[in-house]
Amino acid sequence: MKLVDSLIHGRWIVPVVPHGQILENHSIVINSSKIIEIIPTNEVIGRYQAHHETNLKEHLVLPGLINAHTHAAMSLLRGIADDLPLKSWLEKHIWPLEGQFVGEEFVRDGTLLAVSEMILSGTTCYADMYFYPGNSAEVISEAGIRARIGLIISDFTNNYCTNVDEYFTKGLEFVDNYKHHPLISTQFAPHAPYTVSDAPLNRIQVLSTELAIPIQMHIHETVSEVSDAVEATGKRPLQRLEDLGLLTPDLQAVHMTELNAEEIEKLSANGVHIIHCPESNMKLASGTCPVDLLLGSGVNVALGTDGAASNNDLDMLGEMKSAALLGKLAAKDATAVSAMTVLEMATINGARALGMDKEIGSLERGKQADIIAVDMSGIEQQPMYNPISQLVYTSDRTQVTNLWVAGKHLMKDRQLTTLNLSSILENTQEWQQKLKQQDNL
Amino acid sequence: MKLVDSLIHGRWIVPVVPHGQILENHSIVINSSKIIEIIPTNEVIGRYQAHHETNLKEHLVLPGLINAHTHAAMSLLRGIADDLPLKSWLEKHIWPLEGQFVGEEFVRDGTLLAVSEMILSGTTCYADMYFYPGNSAEVISEAGIRARIGLIISDFTNNYCTNVDEYFTKGLEFVDNYKHHPLISTQFAPHAPYTVSDAPLNRIQVLSTELAIPIQMHIHETVSEVSDAVEATGKRPLQRLEDLGLLTPDLQAVHMTELNAEEIEKLSANGVHIIHCPESNMKLASGTCPVDLLLGSGVNVALGTDGAASNNDLDMLGEMKSAALLGKLAAKDATAVSAMTVLEMATINGARALGMDKEIGSLERGKQADIIAVDMSGIEQQPMYNPISQLVYTSDRTQVTNLWVAGKHLMKDRQLTTLNLSSILENTQEWQQKLKQQDNL
Repeated sequence: MKLVDSLIHGRWIVPVVPHGQILENHSIVINSSKIIEIIPTNEVIGRYQAHHETNLKEHLVLPGLINAHTHAAMSLLRGIADDLPLKSWLEKHIWPLEGQFVGEEFVRDGTLLAVSEMILSGTTCYADMYFYPGNSAEVISEAGIRARIGLIISDFTNNYCTNVDEYFTKGLEFVDNYKHHPLISTQFAPHAPYTVSDAPLNRIQVLSTELAIPIQMHIHETVSEVSDAVEATGKRPLQRLEDLGLLTPDLQAVHMTELNAEEIEKLSANGVHIIHCPESNMKLASGTCPVDLLLGSGVNVALGTDGAASNNDLDMLGEMKSAALLGKLAAKDATAVSAMTVLEMATINGARALGMDKEIGSLERGKQADIIAVDMSGIEQQPMYNPISQLVYTSDRTQVTNLWVAGKHLMKDRQLTTLNLSSILENTQEWQQKLKQQDNL
Repeated sequence: MKLVDSLIHGRWIVPVVPHGQILENHSIVINSSKIIEIIPTNEVIGRYQAHHETNLKEHLVLPGLINAHTHAAMSLLRGIADDLPLKSWLEKHIWPLEGQFVGEEFVRDGTLLAVSEMILSGTTCYADMYFYPGNSAEVISEAGIRARIGLIISDFTNNYCTNVDEYFTKGLEFVDNYKHHPLISTQFAPHAPYTVSDAPLNRIQVLSTELAIPIQMHIHETVSEVSDAVEATGKRPLQRLEDLGLLTPDLQAVHMTELNAEEIEKLSANGVHIIHCPESNMKLASGTCPVDLLLGSGVNVALGTDGAASNNDLDMLGEMKSAALLGKLAAKDATAVSAMTVLEMATINGARALGMDKEIGSLERGKQADIIAVDMSGIEQQPMYNPISQLVYTSDRTQVTNLWVAGKHLMKDRQLTTLNLSSILENTQEWQQKLKQQDNL
């Protein structure tokens, strides 16, 4: 009889690895933040005793969702300027407001709002790209969620940095401060080809290799991004990045709605990871990432919500459904981008993209206990022929009832255990007043 | 001081007509199933007293959603055969199962499942297309929801009808039985151009005019529907329907993913209504209805979920978000198909398509009190810059807390007042066993 930290008993368990496996009436054994094993529930008695037991008789238990691309603090700008094209949305609303308001408080309060929403909707790990990483990190530690902090680098300066060197100085300082943190890891986040010149990109390429730190970048988000670059330089942005030596397995290319066959081949040959943000790409009419073609060429495709300002939520369950529906439509094939495929995109593929698949992304012996439970007893999910199908096509963020990160129970029957929701809502309303007054609508 | 049936006090009221209006802290006065007026809440005292008062301090109050196309009873087949192309989905799974099981019990129990889900997600009126209308009607009367029953006519016969004449006999009998029902109205529902030959279509055209009954039909759902028809007859299906005199304001054309400029012009000139089912069209990879072009040409476009077997839910809030996102992507314009536009598609446009816009579709004096309330206090909806935008892009079916049809309170704080959810779930599980055993997967 072994004493362990926790036992989670699930009606269905989908470990994601192996592909498509559905275990019925199994239990996950957790000790010191890790998964010890997964066994039939009727074999637990006599073998394990636990400090904490959670019975999930009507639930599907699966790996925590990985939101591979977002701008957490931008949740404070959610819905302030909708139904606008990317360019004027950024240039007339988002950038001016950020220019005026982005600071330590904005990032702290915006990240609190975002992290609460993410935990409540089943996200256990997210990759962020924003300013003031130290303030995000404080919130992340307080919340107990897992995060990959993207250190922004851009030719454009703001309150956070007044010149490009400062982005590097502050970024590297952050890397150093957090290199031993159990939940926070780092990567470089050059904003986009059209906002970062060659010199900083060269420096990022060198530092990424030296420090073994990955790179995440918005690439080929729109037709005009590509055509403008071709007009100005004769080169497509992806070609320029290749010439700069950036097309490696350390690169996560976000969006990628503009891709030709040769480029897909190149991404596959170089092991570049793609991060697909279907709802943001649709809402901003940016275009469609050819997910089915990419997967067919062996490219790893992960899933992200993008920031709440262009989505307008951070709901990965909803994003999975959108990815499946858009993937089928784009491929002109209803069998493409199946429910199981989008579940992989939102879990193990995200872990691979971030280079964290030894630790997270599936429920396997020895991996971190990043786990969520979804109540499948809702009327919208009946009849229950296939739990994976019902999870993707009929489930709802509010049906995520429990969430663990590194074995810690961060949401218990819909209640957050580490964050104070009402004070977060109060902060948010104060920001609403300030921002609304200033938005030049 | 006037005594009325009900008063609904809302934080925000969006009547939909006039376009874009948002009333803050207003109240809806309801008497004998109708809206008497909408006035500022602080003017209620002294003017009205009510038998029932509902305070919705954090809610957006709006017209009930109109699901303009579904196959309610098919909810029993939800998720039984996902990620398949339309043809094999229909021919290998759905049709064989229907052939074996569709009957009075199936329709009664399937409709109960569907109507519960619809009420819980904010739908007050739906247009159905299925067999055994009498059994659907019983459930509809019991539930108190509003419905337009589509009387199926097809060359294919089944348990319900063994020959085409029988479809007409039974259909007309139903029309007669229900012509004075307060909540149930009828229309003809020839299944599709490829399943209904000219003779029955001629007869429908004559009867529709004689009896002033509209027609709803699946038209141009896929490329192959159109190309097969051209190959077999040299005519596109829409051309054939025009030759048969069916392109009139009495026709609701469902799907319409294949349309050329000339056809759009023709639909506009003839006042044909379009019913757009974005999630079904995406999930089955059927194609994309050019919503922005249609609206731009003055065509009335309504919204439907299609059956739960190809969606897989009956969630009109989710469908609104999908319609906005897909509409922008298809138009390559982020300003296209705005939040307010999809709200109109899901309310007043649906009422127009069904010829019911004198009665429902907006919150106006004299119209039926078909009303829903959505709780906007969720963390996913903060900050609140624009309630219509947050309703469409961030709200969730579970945030619909209250629903009235003809002034009757059918959902009260998420609780159904006319249906027994647990017995519906039990029935559904029995069907699950039977159907799962037979599905030839």
